[in-house]
Amino acid sequence: MTPPTPGRVARPTWRSPGDPDSADADRPAPAGVAVEPGTARIAVDLLGGDDAPAVVVDGALRAVRADPDLHLLLVGPAETAAEVVDALDLAQRARIAVRPVRDVVAMSEQYPTRAARSHSTVRAAVAAVRTGAADALVSAGSTGATVTAAVLGLGRWPGVRQPALVATLPAIDGPVVLLDVGGSLEAHPATLSRHAVLGAAYAAVAHAVAAPRVGLLSVGTEAGKGDRARRAADPLLAVGPLPCDGRYIGLVEGYDVALGARADVVVTDGFTGNVLLKAIEGAYAMAGGAPASGGAPRAAALLGVSGTVVVCHGSARADDIASGITLAARLWRRAATATVAALIAGEPVDRTDRTTDTEVTA
Amino acid sequence: MTPPTPGRVARPTWRSPGDPDSADADRPAPAGVAVEPGTARIAVDLLGGDDAPAVVVDGALRAVRADPDLHLLLVGPAETAAEVVDALDLAQRARIAVRPVRDVVAMSEQYPTRAARSHSTVRAAVAAVRTGAADALVSAGSTGATVTAAVLGLGRWPGVRQPALVATLPAIDGPVVLLDVGGSLEAHPATLSRHAVLGAAYAAVAHAVAAPRVGLLSVGTEAGKGDRARRAADPLLAVGPLPCDGRYIGLVEGYDVALGARADVVVTDGFTGNVLLKAIEGAYAMAGGAPASGGAPRAAALLGVSGTVVVCHGSARADDIASGITLAARLWRRAATATVAALIAGEPVDRTDRTTDTEVTA
Repeated sequence: MTPPTPGRVARPTWRSPGDPDSADADRPAPAGVAVEPGTARIAVDLLGGDDAPAVVVDGALRAVRADPDLHLLLVGPAETAAEVVDALDLAQRARIAVRPVRDVVAMSEQYPTRAARSHSTVRAAVAAVRTGAADALVSAGSTGATVTAAVLGLGRWPGVRQPALVATLPAIDGPVVLLDVGGSLEAHPATLSRHAVLGAAYAAVAHAVAAPRVGLLSVGTEAGKGDRARRAADPLLAVGPLPCDGRYIGLVEGYDVALGARADVVVTDGFTGNVLLKAIEGAYAMAGGAPASGGAPRAAALLGVSGTVVVCHGSARADDIASGITLAARLWRRAATATVAALIAGEPVDRTDRTTDTEVTA
Repeated sequence: MTPPTPGRVARPTWRSPGDPDSADADRPAPAGVAVEPGTARIAVDLLGGDDAPAVVVDGALRAVRADPDLHLLLVGPAETAAEVVDALDLAQRARIAVRPVRDVVAMSEQYPTRAARSHSTVRAAVAAVRTGAADALVSAGSTGATVTAAVLGLGRWPGVRQPALVATLPAIDGPVVLLDVGGSLEAHPATLSRHAVLGAAYAAVAHAVAAPRVGLLSVGTEAGKGDRARRAADPLLAVGPLPCDGRYIGLVEGYDVALGARADVVVTDGFTGNVLLKAIEGAYAMAGGAPASGGAPRAAALLGVSGTVVVCHGSARADDIASGITLAARLWRRAATATVAALIAGEPVDRTDRTTDTEVTA
């Protein structure tokens, strides 16, 4: 195969959601048929992140070398994409395509800051997912810009007004799904209630949690504890049905996010979830390292838009970018986003094969 | 000295704020004169906490044995106070007084839950501070009940509408003062701005931090990041003068609470601060233990009411209660609360002797 020319979009013979051979990619595989491994084509925002593009280039290289079925669509300046291509061997280059963002030099003048330029690259990455040129996208750029671009470019799920960023923490008895960690920042009771539904479905689909226990993060466990938003949300969650045999266990506290003994899913607003996640990361750094079960997650999945979108935090290092790409590929291979969307919409979903699968890790 | 009879209020010959000999207790000592050590009389709510009274009894015993200048006023059922007294030797007993809450049996019928009974004991402890029978109080009961009792019983400082609970975390370069961790739960820009002032003064007075750097907790460090309350508070903090040469450094993130490299004081609302603190505690537990510099704080000081009040969290163990009593005694001995109040009120305060003192640790 001819390696792609940097600056041109080389289109490998990737499996596409529209191809007859991959018609199962959008829905769960029949019972007994493993979804993994399979080709995953991930669009990567080369300009997203505080230390972009250097760490994104490094992260992309690590991800490509680690996963032989991973294809990348590099979205950004052609010269930056060339750094990735040049560092790979011929076979690996065949798995790289480039989507140069038009007129980067002119854009640099128009948008003098990297953050502003990243807004263009993330929009281009979203467009690649919308048109089927990529299966999923990863960005470490501004979370707000990524969420906005995804909402506008891919559309929201019916009934989901506020998409949620979902992070998974390794805890004592299994993963803890924490949402929202920054998709939206205001605490609205209706949003918290909706996100409980998303979280229960995600825990079941992505992590094979049977009958997930869902808790609402507050300052105490007794009913009535919390601010106005929590006090209003608690009764909503208590009566709202949860998918996948999920059940609402009431209020949980900050301990439960890291320890995980009480709840499989912890629901909070995006402001609280974001600062909480970073505080746990800081605590692990202070304690001299993450626990053996794994540290704070380095990437989060966006739920509520019609496509697979993964966000790394702005201070992502190369490992974090690689971790985000791996998460995006795994979510795509499990058809996780589409399955959660179907569950939210009340469509019948065969998940009998999922409970014994390897779980998705961030 | 005759040991006090459980069930009666024995009044040791304690130094009282009203005594001529201890007139300096309410204000900082003159330069060169150490405030510590000195007698501190701490009222302890025997019924506060999930595992009260057992852990409170144990915590009180530990505190009394560890600090020969500590006197305790045990507030609660006489038979519980007797458990403390009976476990001490004669000399130690002389440092214990008991304030039985009237008619505990009748109260048990009137308030069937421990939490409700604790409301009565914390009110009695507040009354003891108000009348000068104790110098400070410690409760592990409901934070809301303690704050309410303190506000009603001791009064708020002029200009401070929402008292703040202040926790101190040991970080890499020194302590990080986090507030509010549960004094009030709603995020109001004016409250965040006022708490920045309280936090700067507390860092300087209680921890001898020179020119404290104050940050506002948000989801990113660039101006404009955050929810509505943070976006409104950021410009308020930027223009508001801070005491003790404090300066506002802008937005900080969750990492900065545990690591502390960027700010000495982190300001947030009580809901976020509370769940954050507990998440850090959970993370340390997951990581196999707290860092060498110390773990999450086990007690928090209430700022904004006219008295020294320390709150332990509801799941406090005996060590936490002892830690809370120690914190209350140290704050009293440094006249920390009164000094912070004077600084907030703009009164001249001589703090030249403070910068070399041992700092207050929680």
